[in-house]
Parts: sequence; structure tokens; C-alpha cells
Amino acid sequence: MKATEMITTLSRDESYTLLRGSRVARLGCVAEGYPYVVPVNYVFDGESALVHSLPGRKIEAMRADPRVCLQVDEIEGHTKWKSVLAYGTYEEITASAERERAMNCLLSLFPQLTPVESLIATDANAPSPVVFRVRVERVTGVTEG
Amino acid sequence: MKATEMITTLSRDESYTLLRGSRVARLGCVAEGYPYVVPVNYVFDGESALVHSLPGRKIEAMRADPRVCLQVDEIEGHTKWKSVLAYGTYEEITASAERERAMNCLLSLFPQLTPVESLIATDANAPSPVVFRVRVERVTGVTEG
Repeated sequence: MKATEMITTLSRDESYTLLRGSRVARLGCVAEGYPYVVPVNYVFDGESALVHSLPGRKIEAMRADPRVCLQVDEIEGHTKWKSVLAYGTYEEITASAERERAMNCLLSLFPQLTPVESLIATDANAPSPVVFRVRVERVTGVTEG
Repeated sequence: MKATEMITTLSRDESYTLLRGSRVARLGCVAEGYPYVVPVNYVFDGESALVHSLPGRKIEAMRADPRVCLQVDEIEGHTKWKSVLAYGTYEEITASAERERAMNCLLSLFPQLTPVESLIATDANAPSPVVFRVRVERVTGVTEG
């Protein structure tokens, strides 16, 4: 059996580099007391992560309790991985010009749309996607290997 | 722009198949009101997921509030993915025979140890890993593509 594995803390720069470079995060929120986690596509501008989603359980949950986290990792193997956790606040983007800019930015990155978060519908009856940011307040990161 | 993407619900069987077949989940819990998400290795026996971890923030959080979730996905592309969310209860395994069986099971699957969850240390001073199960009470799943 091996000696202690080396799990170490990522520096702030390393954590932000992973957050900026990734496109899929697991978004965590609290829904009626229970943790709720879904994969989302996002883009991080250094202060906030921009996300869009169909209305649904997580949107209702984040409107009720805006404390959320984004977990991003890079797993190359059991003993070679990084994981970053960004804590922040949910802010819905509703002003039409700002919402359009955000949607255009997301669509330019994810033209094919994305895990759970996507869904651009052209049907008249389809629900409108919700666009929001997670304003990041604190980031922690760990790595092994 | 495409018409509505087809996101559909996974059947119970499909959801359980993904849960049984995967080895990495994102474990969500609530730590002092905030969602907390980390990657974990696990094995699911049809009723519970078995996990081990070093003592730390998430163990403290789950001892204080045992409501947890495990999110498991299979992402092949922006429009081809599955995601399952299993809600359950944290139960620490402390009885020595049961704990040893659980550790042996996990070590046989993850001889190299794993993301965040691993860390078997032979040093006398190293903290003992915590072994726990998440007793799954409800599973939901969605898929696209």
C-alpha cells in the first residue's frame, strides 16, 4: 500500500485558470433543504459565470435561495485530478439588452446547446430560457498528482 | 436555429443502470446553508452508494445534515448526454467488521485511490478515512440525444 497520497491546495491563480478554461460545471443549489446538483454549460469572465437554463426546479430553487456553487474538475485518473469549488450568488438577468448580450455570448460558445442548461426553442409555446449569472465570491481548489 | 431540443425523462431502469455503471459522482450536501459539491468515487449496490473520504468539510456537513445527493452523468457532447440525480441519506459506517468489508470493496474497485475521496494513508499520524453510505431514496434522470 502506498504512503499518503499528495492532495494539495490549488493557488488562487490555478483555481481561476481551471474555472476560466472549463465549459461544463456542476451547479449546486439548495432546493427545499435538499442539495440539488446538475451539469451546466457556462462561461466565466473572471467575476461571474454566465449560464442559461429552461425554467424548472433549479431556477425555482435559486430564486428562493440564491446561494449556489459551481464545481469544476479535470479528472485524468484516480490519482491525477483537480477540482475547484466556486461559491457565489444567483442573479437573474432580465433587462432585455443585457439578456440578449448574454444569450449571444452563450450561443456563440455553445451553438449546439448543452447539458440540461440549453434548450433554445423557436416554438411559440416553448418556455423562454432563463439567463443568469453566478457572481463568484470565493473559490477553493484542490489537486492530486 | 433549431427547434426544441428533445430532453426526455430517463426511466427508473435507465437511471439505475447509469448509477450502477458509473464510478465517479458529484456528491452534493448542504454546509452551513450553502450547497457544497465534490467529486467522489463510489460503488452502488442497488440500494446504497458506498463512499470513503478523509475527514473534512463535507463529512462535518453531512454529520450535521444527512440529506445528500449524488449526481452522475455521461456526457458525450452538447446534445448527447444523460444525467441522474439520486437523493438519499448519509449513514456513517463505524462498526469495525462492516467498515472493513466496505473498505475492502472500495479498495478492490479503486486500488489507486481517487478524486478527493480517497487517501489511504499508512502513516501513523494520518487521519483515518471515513467510510459511509448514501442510502438512496429517490432517483430522477434526464437525457438528450
